[in-house]
Amino acid sequence: MVSYNWKWFIEYTHPTQAHMHGVEHFVYSGQTAFQKVEIVDTEFFGRCLILDGKIQSAEHDEYIYHETLIHPAMTMHPAPKRVMIAGGGEGAVLREILKHPSVEEVLMVDIDQEVIELCEKYLPRWNAGTYHHDKVKIVFEDARKYLAESTEQWDVIFMDLPEPLENSPCYMLFTREFYRLVKERLRGSGIIALQAGNLNIRLMECHGAIYNTLKTVFQHVDSYGAYIPSYDTKWGFMCASDFFNAQDFPAGRIDSRLQERGMNDLQYYDGLTHQHLFTLPKDLRRLRAAELRIIEDDDPLTTY
Amino acid sequence: MVSYNWKWFIEYTHPTQAHMHGVEHFVYSGQTAFQKVEIVDTEFFGRCLILDGKIQSAEHDEYIYHETLIHPAMTMHPAPKRVMIAGGGEGAVLREILKHPSVEEVLMVDIDQEVIELCEKYLPRWNAGTYHHDKVKIVFEDARKYLAESTEQWDVIFMDLPEPLENSPCYMLFTREFYRLVKERLRGSGIIALQAGNLNIRLMECHGAIYNTLKTVFQHVDSYGAYIPSYDTKWGFMCASDFFNAQDFPAGRIDSRLQERGMNDLQYYDGLTHQHLFTLPKDLRRLRAAELRIIEDDDPLTTY
Amino acid sequence: MVSYNWKWFIEYTHPTQAHMHGVEHFVYSGQTAFQKVEIVDTEFFGRCLILDGKIQSAEHDEYIYHETLIHPAMTMHPAPKRVMIAGGGEGAVLREILKHPSVEEVLMVDIDQEVIELCEKYLPRWNAGTYHHDKVKIVFEDARKYLAESTEQWDVIFMDLPEPLENSPCYMLFTREFYRLVKERLRGSGIIALQAGNLNIRLMECHGAIYNTLKTVFQHVDSYGAYIPSYDTKWGFMCASDFFNAQDFPAGRIDSRLQERGMNDLQYYDGLTHQHLFTLPKDLRRLRAAELRIIEDDDPLTTY
Amino acid sequence: MVSYNWKWFIEYTHPTQAHMHGVEHFVYSGQTAFQKVEIVDTEFFGRCLILDGKIQSAEHDEYIYHETLIHPAMTMHPAPKRVMIAGGGEGAVLREILKHPSVEEVLMVDIDQEVIELCEKYLPRWNAGTYHHDKVKIVFEDARKYLAESTEQWDVIFMDLPEPLENSPCYMLFTREFYRLVKERLRGSGIIALQAGNLNIRLMECHGAIYNTLKTVFQHVDSYGAYIPSYDTKWGFMCASDFFNAQDFPAGRIDSRLQERGMNDLQYYDGLTHQHLFTLPKDLRRLRAAELRIIEDDDPLTTY
Repeated sequence: MVSYNWKWFIEYTHPTQAHMHGVEHFVYSGQTAFQKVEIVDTEFFGRCLILDGKIQSAEHDEYIYHETLIHPAMTMHPAPKRVMIAGGGEGAVLREILKHPSVEEVLMVDIDQEVIELCEKYLPRWNAGTYHHDKVKIVFEDARKYLAESTEQWDVIFMDLPEPLENSPCYMLFTREFYRLVKERLRGSGIIALQAGNLNIRLMECHGAIYNTLKTVFQHVDSYGAYIPSYDTKWGFMCASDFFNAQDFPAGRIDSRLQERGMNDLQYYDGLTHQHLFTLPKDLRRLRAAELRIIEDDDPLTTY
Repeated sequence: MVSYNWKWFIEYTHPTQAHMHGVEHFVYSGQTAFQKVEIVDTEFFGRCLILDGKIQSAEHDEYIYHETLIHPAMTMHPAPKRVMIAGGGEGAVLREILKHPSVEEVLMVDIDQEVIELCEKYLPRWNAGTYHHDKVKIVFEDARKYLAESTEQWDVIFMDLPEPLENSPCYMLFTREFYRLVKERLRGSGIIALQAGNLNIRLMECHGAIYNTLKTVFQHVDSYGAYIPSYDTKWGFMCASDFFNAQDFPAGRIDSRLQERGMNDLQYYDGLTHQHLFTLPKDLRRLRAAELRIIEDDDPLTTY
Repeated sequence: MVSYNWKWFIEYTHPTQAHMHGVEHFVYSGQTAFQKVEIVDTEFFGRCLILDGKIQSAEHDEYIYHETLIHPAMTMHPAPKRVMIAGGGEGAVLREILKHPSVEEVLMVDIDQEVIELCEKYLPRWNAGTYHHDKVKIVFEDARKYLAESTEQWDVIFMDLPEPLENSPCYMLFTREFYRLVKERLRGSGIIALQAGNLNIRLMECHGAIYNTLKTVFQHVDSYGAYIPSYDTKWGFMCASDFFNAQDFPAGRIDSRLQERGMNDLQYYDGLTHQHLFTLPKDLRRLRAAELRIIEDDDPLTTY
Repeated sequence: MVSYNWKWFIEYTHPTQAHMHGVEHFVYSGQTAFQKVEIVDTEFFGRCLILDGKIQSAEHDEYIYHETLIHPAMTMHPAPKRVMIAGGGEGAVLREILKHPSVEEVLMVDIDQEVIELCEKYLPRWNAGTYHHDKVKIVFEDARKYLAESTEQWDVIFMDLPEPLENSPCYMLFTREFYRLVKERLRGSGIIALQAGNLNIRLMECHGAIYNTLKTVFQHVDSYGAYIPSYDTKWGFMCASDFFNAQDFPAGRIDSRLQERGMNDLQYYDGLTHQHLFTLPKDLRRLRAAELRIIEDDDPLTTY
């Protein structure tokens, strides 16, 4: 029957849970030194980047993920100048960070040069030329190693990493020891923000454990979430610092800052959205609180 | 390979989008006078009720849908006494409504008696015996016909209906003419609340159209949303009245009312959750505003 | 989209190969002491019996499997009187065996009484009342144990067993030691016939190994195959004896015997079909010959 | 879970029947003037060519389809010199035809030049350089138009066409009028051979109708079948002529001719295989006989 779609990408989140994405075109498929990369065109979500079988971002809704990761931390900070990213290869985080006019330098430390080259070639809307922006510097290295060996200080550090699948390149970037190192590299009023796992009520161990772990290092930890259609789930994020309380940050001040910075044309983020993001429903707060695990180097977290 | 699950329920939301639920046990399957009914047990979400191929509610997360539909309207109303429901066969709405101590009478008008009998038999946790509660009355009839012929007045009217699939029993309960009839049956300070379609950014026509249609009838319309894991998406709701502005309703007052009513053990809803629900992200506000359609009897809405 | 089927049984034969069967109704699902049992109704193949995730037989084409297993051996034998079956719970083998008028006694030894009770209840067309036929005796026991302890002699012994999945009840019924035992229980002109694994060119280890193993015990071993639509593959069978050469058995004599026995209304089997079954294509003969394994008790065969 | 395959090609044969092929790499995807083309690499069957959503041939088993189509007709003919093919773009039919040493000229008439170019680039094992063989001539045209306008005579004409899907380029090459035209272009002892539809017992309308239609034109029509693993079904073929009776053609003579022609290293075809192919089981003979349709230009056949 010609009306059936016959090419599919099936993303499993559990042995009994999967999402089927009809694919128009498998654009690229390969294996870098670190991960399997697929780039596919779907009718529903446009072009998608898939690493190790998990959709990382999709053309039609990547703005949700990237604005949610970047703008709360950047907007609460009164004048972020020096920004570092661990991971973030697609370049969309660069694109969002550079919208804040105070930014003077952005450093991206991503272990996988091949992914960045593929993104430059196949995902130009994501990075929008920012790899070559004057303020941007890219280093291909393990972010933990880089931070350990450097003494630079940053206003905001973002962790834009895939999920810590077993044997993935990033599972040692979710531990208490690593977050302590991050904190040492933050200026006094610095903030860390990161993607922080699934908020599906059955799959929240990862989110809860990251929350607890950050709590052992930072005074304020705010966990927040956004529904990402192409992920088929609500996804978790976190920001942490010793100064900023994101949940109580007034929506009006978000809006006025975005206005001052000439950023009121964002697609997803504004004052109301900030309130939405940082007011997790009661069940998620409870599930987060029920998770007691703290992630440490000698017992790192891995997910499905 | 024995580790593969081999029984699946596949829910399509689009020709190129589907969610696969591994099933442990297909408990019941049948066809009532109005719709196809499946009751299945899944490892991931527990027991699920499926009507015409769409999951209506799942054991492990039905509290999200039902608390989100019921409690905002019921809590904003200072003393709801007479409550009516169109649809709502599973009985979970009864269970939630009866938690509000001011309630004196609840009328459920559901067209499909067989579904209610199946729910009583197979979904006892949903209805928790409430079909036979002293304050509850159940009428098996088309809700529109009932409202047209009765002159009773209600404090809150809930529309807990499936999506208006073509040929489904409910697609004439989403029109301007119907909402006008509902308004005539509301007491002066009355509120209507309803499930109101998918909030997936690609599938928001239905939500936007219902919003516009309610706007032609009520002074305040608040559209809101909750991520429902078993639906695999954020789902839309609406409440409308001439008196209550849900978005600005203070979180603190929600919490104190729940306290007064002895309801602070809800799983999902409280003041913070209320804020979360009613602060739709900017993209959804924009997509809602982009939809101009008003639904009328002679051009009813049907969905995929 | 209402036109999509939403209930599926997915049968995996390999991590990258699966067949999807749209299901109308999941009739029964349970776990006996020995295996998982599903009985489902499909639009395409009618009712199906599934053990441990593998279709055993389907209403619309079970005649192919059962006639192919039973009639070559029974028809080549000039007057089979005493017939034994190991397995065969559905009862369709009884139905076919009893068509041969010389039969005086049929013994079925099946380990799983519950499966037979389910088949009597749910698959009446398969067994057609034969469980209670005068000539039939059923014993619920492990067939190997039974044969070891009994001294009865049989004209034909059938092995109608599921595939030897790991931990399945039957994987010790495919070994050289077991076949030796079978031979001791056969009368001089006796024949054994059995289902003998997939004939998919990528999945023939099992068939080749059974062939080699039988060769160490019997003078003539004929391997044959029939395409079974509901299995989605060509399936292998074998018959072995010290007297009968099935491949060279003349088609005309098959037809005249069926005629004499009043059996010319079979659906699948006749002289031409016999020729078809026993003339395996060259590639399968080669692949069978390439498999060198002999199955022994201390190294039994298990399949995917 | 990394062990799941996440890229799939799903081939539907019916709204409730589908086969899932895990894909390693989607090699090529495009749309020619006539059809959608996919070339994929699978772990199980190697490289596959897919036209309009249907697998045409797979690396690991294409020899079955191509030997079955070509060698019965070519071997029964005592000295085929001039051979024509309608369709056959992959080139594997050329490869097989050229094995017969008597062949002097092979003409391939295929409507879709782009498919042939893709096959030359991506399927070199299929065509094995034969597109450029001295004896081979390729014309890009509709085969029916070519035959109508030419007066050349052929010893064997092969129809290697996809299924007659609605709007496919080939559905007018299955009619009585077309077969009459073919007959006019055959030398006196000429033979036509063709692929002739699915032999799944539920999907045999097409095969039966082609059989009836050829019967109105040729004195001998033999329908035959081979199980093709990558098709997941037994597939039908036919050969027709006024002289050759394939079913009764002695196996020994097949083997001696192959020997004389230096062709005893074929993978699939020999005397025994010939017997196997031309002895359709009784149920298929009955289903073929039950189909009464004759295909004519003003009522052409289309399939699912």
